[in-house]
Amino acid sequence: MLTDTASTQLVLDLVGVFVFALSGAIVGVRRGLDLFGILVLGWVAGLGGGIIRDVFLGITPPVGVSDWRLLAAAVVAGLIVFLLHGTWQAAAERHPDARWRRVSFTVRMLDAAGLAVFAVSGALVALGAEAGALAAVLIGGITGIGGGLLRDVLTGQVPEVLRRELYAVPALAGAALVVVLHEAGALTTLTAWIAVALVFVTRVVAVVLDLNAPRALRSGP
Amino acid sequence: MLTDTASTQLVLDLVGVFVFALSGAIVGVRRGLDLFGILVLGWVAGLGGGIIRDVFLGITPPVGVSDWRLLAAAVVAGLIVFLLHGTWQAAAERHPDARWRRVSFTVRMLDAAGLAVFAVSGALVALGAEAGALAAVLIGGITGIGGGLLRDVLTGQVPEVLRRELYAVPALAGAALVVVLHEAGALTTLTAWIAVALVFVTRVVAVVLDLNAPRALRSGP
Amino acid sequence: MLTDTASTQLVLDLVGVFVFALSGAIVGVRRGLDLFGILVLGWVAGLGGGIIRDVFLGITPPVGVSDWRLLAAAVVAGLIVFLLHGTWQAAAERHPDARWRRVSFTVRMLDAAGLAVFAVSGALVALGAEAGALAAVLIGGITGIGGGLLRDVLTGQVPEVLRRELYAVPALAGAALVVVLHEAGALTTLTAWIAVALVFVTRVVAVVLDLNAPRALRSGP
Repeated sequence: MLTDTASTQLVLDLVGVFVFALSGAIVGVRRGLDLFGILVLGWVAGLGGGIIRDVFLGITPPVGVSDWRLLAAAVVAGLIVFLLHGTWQAAAERHPDARWRRVSFTVRMLDAAGLAVFAVSGALVALGAEAGALAAVLIGGITGIGGGLLRDVLTGQVPEVLRRELYAVPALAGAALVVVLHEAGALTTLTAWIAVALVFVTRVVAVVLDLNAPRALRSGP
Repeated sequence: MLTDTASTQLVLDLVGVFVFALSGAIVGVRRGLDLFGILVLGWVAGLGGGIIRDVFLGITPPVGVSDWRLLAAAVVAGLIVFLLHGTWQAAAERHPDARWRRVSFTVRMLDAAGLAVFAVSGALVALGAEAGALAAVLIGGITGIGGGLLRDVLTGQVPEVLRRELYAVPALAGAALVVVLHEAGALTTLTAWIAVALVFVTRVVAVVLDLNAPRALRSGP
Repeated sequence: MLTDTASTQLVLDLVGVFVFALSGAIVGVRRGLDLFGILVLGWVAGLGGGIIRDVFLGITPPVGVSDWRLLAAAVVAGLIVFLLHGTWQAAAERHPDARWRRVSFTVRMLDAAGLAVFAVSGALVALGAEAGALAAVLIGGITGIGGGLLRDVLTGQVPEVLRRELYAVPALAGAALVVVLHEAGALTTLTAWIAVALVFVTRVVAVVLDLNAPRALRSGP
């Protein structure tokens, strides 16, 4: 296990909460939600994955309702989006065609960062709770996917994980890499962040190139 | 802590389950569900918040599946809506314009009552489980919001908490008031119910006056 | 309790995961999801009910993320649907009218089988965890309903349990039968499978005959 697990874990969680909360808050602004709706959606996106992870591991109450630092990260992310949106909006008015496409792209990049950080963090927490290797891989993947999934379900969108490009695969692969590093005694702060980077890059490449996994043959609606 | 926590808690839970189950059952009738669909939606709305609370606190099995009094309250609420709906419908026929608006208003008032009762009840249970002050505030808020949120997600509606008027704020404020009263040693059955009343009144005023929190600047669809 | 509880339990769970995962994967193919989306939806449908059951009973981590046999059953079901869909599709092309109706019927039959198996399995696990008779009935019902409900919520459909025909009733009745058999000391592998068969037949008859429970009087939209 990491010698400095606790601090690495906290940094990972703070980064993950912050970027996922940004994604949730931006979706909230697009939906015309008010300040508190934006904060709620930021909280759901930022802390939902960690809450599912903690419930699966029997860690009660989940850190998503008990750790003020994580809550503060989500609130700050929501406030930043709320305050800066007007400025950003004004700039975007000059290029109206590119506007919503850019918002959508920004949300997906933030989502990719959250996915990467939480997949690694989820696997680390599961290993720390002695959940077993297989459970650590799956809980890592679910931690990465969970916040974005709850965000999308609450706003009536098809979750990213069911859309076309690779999404669950990099999350599960990142968590698996953490488990392998742990088994090999090679899990350090550096290698944990390398795993984060690999998940992020894989996901970004998938979004940019619109990489699809094979689909079943099918025609018609 | 309350000297008579257990009985206050039970009364709060029974009231909360009953009014939320009424709201769920009415939504079920509007959707044209049959008797059992109505009962299921009443159960989800009435007991969903408490189930989330218990899962977050590690209380297993959740009271929503184990306490026959709460289950009976939800079933009775569902049956009342099912049986009385025809009568009420006939009366409403004479004022067709006002009809759905009134149903919607009734559901929101019942939802406000459930929100108030469960926010206080959730905070009390969390304090009783020694979850810490911050977790008690958030778990209280989530307990208040949870049942209505699950009801709305299952019926494909945008959850109330993401709509315009103040919703999460009164729930969190009510739970925070309970925590403050507890810290100050001033938590009694009376003050707990005063907290319920404050949340309810705040939410009702928000619905009636259509009070909005500020929204981010935004134009277009 | 069963003398061979563990093996009966495992067989029930494997069958339930497999048929529910088939249902989820077929829904995924209909939605045009790629291979990994299909596998995710199969996993959600196949293991969602058991995960809710385990969370309600405090069994952590849930078997849905820790038992490789159940995960393998879900993956195999997803791969079968993915690989065979093209062949089946080609055959269906010759009878285009019947096509989607048949897919829908197949999904509902698989769903009925999963409902039956998991209602019984959920009640057994709850009894084994000493959750009490009432909780065992409700947790059994929820285990049966959960996977299909999550599948439908994620794909934006109205959950089966809120549609017209009997759905929650056979699940709860099957779980109640298991509890009664347990109390009477008559719970064996044979009687458990008879309970499964009764739930399945009731549900299939409800689908085929389009049996509805009574609906509240109601007109207009």
